[in-house]
Amino acid sequence: MISPNESAASARPATVAEVFPNSRRVYVEGQLHPGLRIPLREIALAETKHPSGRIEVNEPVRVYDTSGPWGDADYRGDVEKGLPALRLPWILARGDVAEYDGRAVKPEDNGYLSDEHAARHNERKSARNRLKEYPGLKRRPLRASAGHPVTQMWYAKQGIVTPEMEYIAIRENLGREAAFRAATDRDGARNLLNHQHPGNPWGASIPEFITPEFVRDEVARGRAIIPANVNHPESEPMIIGRNFLVKINANIGNSAVASTIDEEVEKLQWSTLWGADTVMDLSTGKNIHATREWILRNSPVPIGTVPIYQALEKVNGRVEDLCWEVFRDTLVEQAEQGVDYFTIHAGVLLRFIPLTARRTTGIVSRGGSILAKWCLYHHKENFLYTHWTEICDLMAQYDVSFSIGDGLRPGSIADANDAAQFGELEAQGELTREAWARGVQVMNEGPGHVPMHLIQENMEKQLEWCHEAPFYTLGPLTTDIAPGYDHITSGIGAAMIGWYGCAMLCYVTPKEHLGLPNREDVREGVVTYKIAAHAADLAKGHPAAQLRDNALSKARFEFRWEDQFNLSLDPTKARSFHDETLPQDGAKTAHFCSMCGPTFCSMKITEDVREYAEKIGIEEDEAIKQGMAEKAREFAEMGAEIYS
Amino acid sequence: MISPNESAASARPATVAEVFPNSRRVYVEGQLHPGLRIPLREIALAETKHPSGRIEVNEPVRVYDTSGPWGDADYRGDVEKGLPALRLPWILARGDVAEYDGRAVKPEDNGYLSDEHAARHNERKSARNRLKEYPGLKRRPLRASAGHPVTQMWYAKQGIVTPEMEYIAIRENLGREAAFRAATDRDGARNLLNHQHPGNPWGASIPEFITPEFVRDEVARGRAIIPANVNHPESEPMIIGRNFLVKINANIGNSAVASTIDEEVEKLQWSTLWGADTVMDLSTGKNIHATREWILRNSPVPIGTVPIYQALEKVNGRVEDLCWEVFRDTLVEQAEQGVDYFTIHAGVLLRFIPLTARRTTGIVSRGGSILAKWCLYHHKENFLYTHWTEICDLMAQYDVSFSIGDGLRPGSIADANDAAQFGELEAQGELTREAWARGVQVMNEGPGHVPMHLIQENMEKQLEWCHEAPFYTLGPLTTDIAPGYDHITSGIGAAMIGWYGCAMLCYVTPKEHLGLPNREDVREGVVTYKIAAHAADLAKGHPAAQLRDNALSKARFEFRWEDQFNLSLDPTKARSFHDETLPQDGAKTAHFCSMCGPTFCSMKITEDVREYAEKIGIEEDEAIKQGMAEKAREFAEMGAEIYS
Repeated sequence: MISPNESAASARPATVAEVFPNSRRVYVEGQLHPGLRIPLREIALAETKHPSGRIEVNEPVRVYDTSGPWGDADYRGDVEKGLPALRLPWILARGDVAEYDGRAVKPEDNGYLSDEHAARHNERKSARNRLKEYPGLKRRPLRASAGHPVTQMWYAKQGIVTPEMEYIAIRENLGREAAFRAATDRDGARNLLNHQHPGNPWGASIPEFITPEFVRDEVARGRAIIPANVNHPESEPMIIGRNFLVKINANIGNSAVASTIDEEVEKLQWSTLWGADTVMDLSTGKNIHATREWILRNSPVPIGTVPIYQALEKVNGRVEDLCWEVFRDTLVEQAEQGVDYFTIHAGVLLRFIPLTARRTTGIVSRGGSILAKWCLYHHKENFLYTHWTEICDLMAQYDVSFSIGDGLRPGSIADANDAAQFGELEAQGELTREAWARGVQVMNEGPGHVPMHLIQENMEKQLEWCHEAPFYTLGPLTTDIAPGYDHITSGIGAAMIGWYGCAMLCYVTPKEHLGLPNREDVREGVVTYKIAAHAADLAKGHPAAQLRDNALSKARFEFRWEDQFNLSLDPTKARSFHDETLPQDGAKTAHFCSMCGPTFCSMKITEDVREYAEKIGIEEDEAIKQGMAEKAREFAEMGAEIYS
Repeated sequence: MISPNESAASARPATVAEVFPNSRRVYVEGQLHPGLRIPLREIALAETKHPSGRIEVNEPVRVYDTSGPWGDADYRGDVEKGLPALRLPWILARGDVAEYDGRAVKPEDNGYLSDEHAARHNERKSARNRLKEYPGLKRRPLRASAGHPVTQMWYAKQGIVTPEMEYIAIRENLGREAAFRAATDRDGARNLLNHQHPGNPWGASIPEFITPEFVRDEVARGRAIIPANVNHPESEPMIIGRNFLVKINANIGNSAVASTIDEEVEKLQWSTLWGADTVMDLSTGKNIHATREWILRNSPVPIGTVPIYQALEKVNGRVEDLCWEVFRDTLVEQAEQGVDYFTIHAGVLLRFIPLTARRTTGIVSRGGSILAKWCLYHHKENFLYTHWTEICDLMAQYDVSFSIGDGLRPGSIADANDAAQFGELEAQGELTREAWARGVQVMNEGPGHVPMHLIQENMEKQLEWCHEAPFYTLGPLTTDIAPGYDHITSGIGAAMIGWYGCAMLCYVTPKEHLGLPNREDVREGVVTYKIAAHAADLAKGHPAAQLRDNALSKARFEFRWEDQFNLSLDPTKARSFHDETLPQDGAKTAHFCSMCGPTFCSMKITEDVREYAEKIGIEEDEAIKQGMAEKAREFAEMGAEIYS
């Protein structure tokens, strides 16, 4: 068991109990689908001791929990065997998929010319860089067998509320299920009444309680997606859409320069522990297939990939040798493994490429530049675009969702919102409609580097041109001048676009533009993006979002230091920062903090003011009406006692 | 000479050369006031070697520099003697101030009952906590002598362009003085033409070039202030107003719990090195007067204080013993030392106090709670409010600016924009008008904890109720749930309110709510707020702000790694992050980075695409008209060469 500060190399991830003290895993049961158990993390709180002697019980706070079975102290898992196949019974019960003999794994899937090449490579390499095949469960893949898509969108359009949808409804209500049931019993219709938040002029409208029916309706309209490949039954259902909690994605993945499979699995667990809602595996170089198998079998969250990266490895990095057959083969390979969403840069059209030539930073998306190079070399339209319907039909058979790539996203403030970027966005809209027609779920990727005053236009155009499909942006970064702090430059833009209606925010770590994130960078990136997402949830008016702020602020005000730490996004860091100045245990129960010292504290004064107001019954109207001369006399008399 | 990573204790601050490699101090000379030398930091850049062999020279980039004389490699300073009195000749030349015998320093100014008490205290204390009087220059204080205020606002209203105003105009133009002069020669009127930025619907309007006359006009209207006490001649003129660059403040100050005078002076130099535009000394406990003297004599930026903190020490922490005489004495003491702005919580009126009793976090401002306690105890109106005109007349004699405090600012999301907060803001407006009538410069302090959707209302009400006086906010923090990361929760709000028109942002460090910031926390806080301020400058449309983003992005795109680092807000951190993954020197000139590895890089591809487009003369119109079949053939033929 390692501490959160230990180095990544030999590590198994810290547990929830280590990182989030005083928390425990709780489950809420489903109603429509008996047997559903929706996980939440419950943070226990101390009671408040009022100066009057009165004891006030503080109810525990339940928060969304992405850590999967690892977050349950009773779970005994083994990464070599993988997580339980939670969704498998639901998938099979629908009776519309069948097992089949999947595509055989080929040496080139892992970047080798042949099995001998792999063997020779392994001999030469250190243990660190050797191919390490997944030892555990190998299922035969599932695929649609009833002549229709097996996507959550297709079910939604048929009016079917899947277990996934109910699971999500309960999960999004953040443990308010008791109140939720009461409200449903009393007045079912009320739940569908849109709760219009005064501060949200941007069109998102989140109901006071999320019902399974609301989830179904949003998915049917294409306004939300549930990434849920039938071959990734380990994943816990979650939803991406602007009328739900804002989600965040963490990127992991080995690269040609550094990192191993072990590290990637650990990064997966580490990022979901801190709160990543989905994880993208952006591995390149050797052992891509093997790395992905390790990740998928151990991931409680949806996994996304950029299949063109692996396709490119299969043609030895020669962009001009890419072709539909290799790409299609890669899609099948990854769909069979269980990838939940594919980034596909089908909107990088030939006619947009010259629009980038005068940019300050040209094409900065890896996928975008691969396709641009291919298009120019062959002078043909992007083969992802020309094969779009075939791609859709393939993905519909597994319920892989689209994350339509933004290959021409701006890489600098100077290039924001230009013709190339918006040309591609419009093309994304066309592709979205086509995918929907074939039953495939879609989200759209967005920028990038965008100054604050140009962010809103991105959201507006995306909603209009892409028919309200969920938007999924990288940041955006609001200035270029702070490499080393790009989690912050982008956290600003992410919070804003989340408020405007962006459904998922792709995290940026402090290492962006500079290097590969290590363990601490991943933590910093995830926490920063949890902040951005939560700030957006508050601003959008998610009805349950503020409960945690209120509980933490109450704890802070009442000098319940441990509760303040435990309610925070990163209790370990909060506690260690506090202890740097006041390490003594007593300081964590003391009625003062390091800013003002023991003899004076503004919070203490306010507490006294409030206690005084209570004691002598100051009510604002009364006070204003009666004047306060009398009260002040009483106060002066009491003063010595209260303030001594 | 210490490295930026060394501990604070024994340290003298790192120099500009250590922290900002390849930078040098340059000076731009004034025109209206010969002899003015305005400092800027100039970052030298390498040339670009195009694949064609063409060499392109990259002009150096000039940036605003707050580091003062310490930022000049030729400066030989001694903190025991203080900085040169830059503004003294300008002040004396105006002929409206006179020296006088200042108030004698009393033992209670430093928190002692008597000289013997101080001596006994010093015997008992370690060197670290001893009173350490400033050994250097003791000037007799200056004060107005001609029967009128000696404030920059008064001069501005008389139509006088002071040297301070010209200094500021040149400084705000970020070294574009050549272009500025050309424009003035050609068409003087053009400079006053407001440059209306398309993305700024919030009313700020920054001219294409800032002229001394524009500065004067903004100060005369009260829309900007120049904090410049006649007794702080060491300070380099700067301006706070929404039609100028957004400024940031860093708080320092010892507390009853920790830190020494040496550390405070070092924090001052450290924060101005990173870019703090003003510094507030929030010291409490012992040795307040002595600490402030050290700070003022060594500060190239305006210094703000909260005089009620020291007044409270003088009455031994007994709020009820505070009175006008002690407070007035403290104002004189600090004005004579040279404090440039005072936070005064005169808007905490008796009638607003009960409005806080039902809040989640009551009164969190230290000043606010002192005044609330005083008002309730005596049941009298706030004595700062009742003595307002006397305070104004006193401050007008030294040109101390007001920072009217927001003692009832919200301390949690739950309390944002409530009746207590907005009641005080309205009172601030009344106080502002009165101060202006007496020639005193004013800014207004603002919140605090505010969710994103309620930020704009703060700015709008402040502009309306406070007659466009500059707004100066703490954050705001956009969620309460991330102690340990409140530089980020607040950086989001700060960037947004800066865009909306907030003139100065008070930094928040990662230690906020938890402990006292150390050296690294100050660096993190200042850099985060430089990001917020710069993001706001871009969004507001400051005409020169984007030059640095463009230069950095160009460097990034061209793989000029060193230039990318050196143009960033924190070159040391950017370089060290890069070197964690790719430490070899060669990697900093290589055409690839750690994300994609040496065999593939999206920026490399774009560079090739652009080079190709140049070579074969692709122009977008042409390309669209002619189709690209021919081009593609040429490209295929060239491909082997370009991409091999």
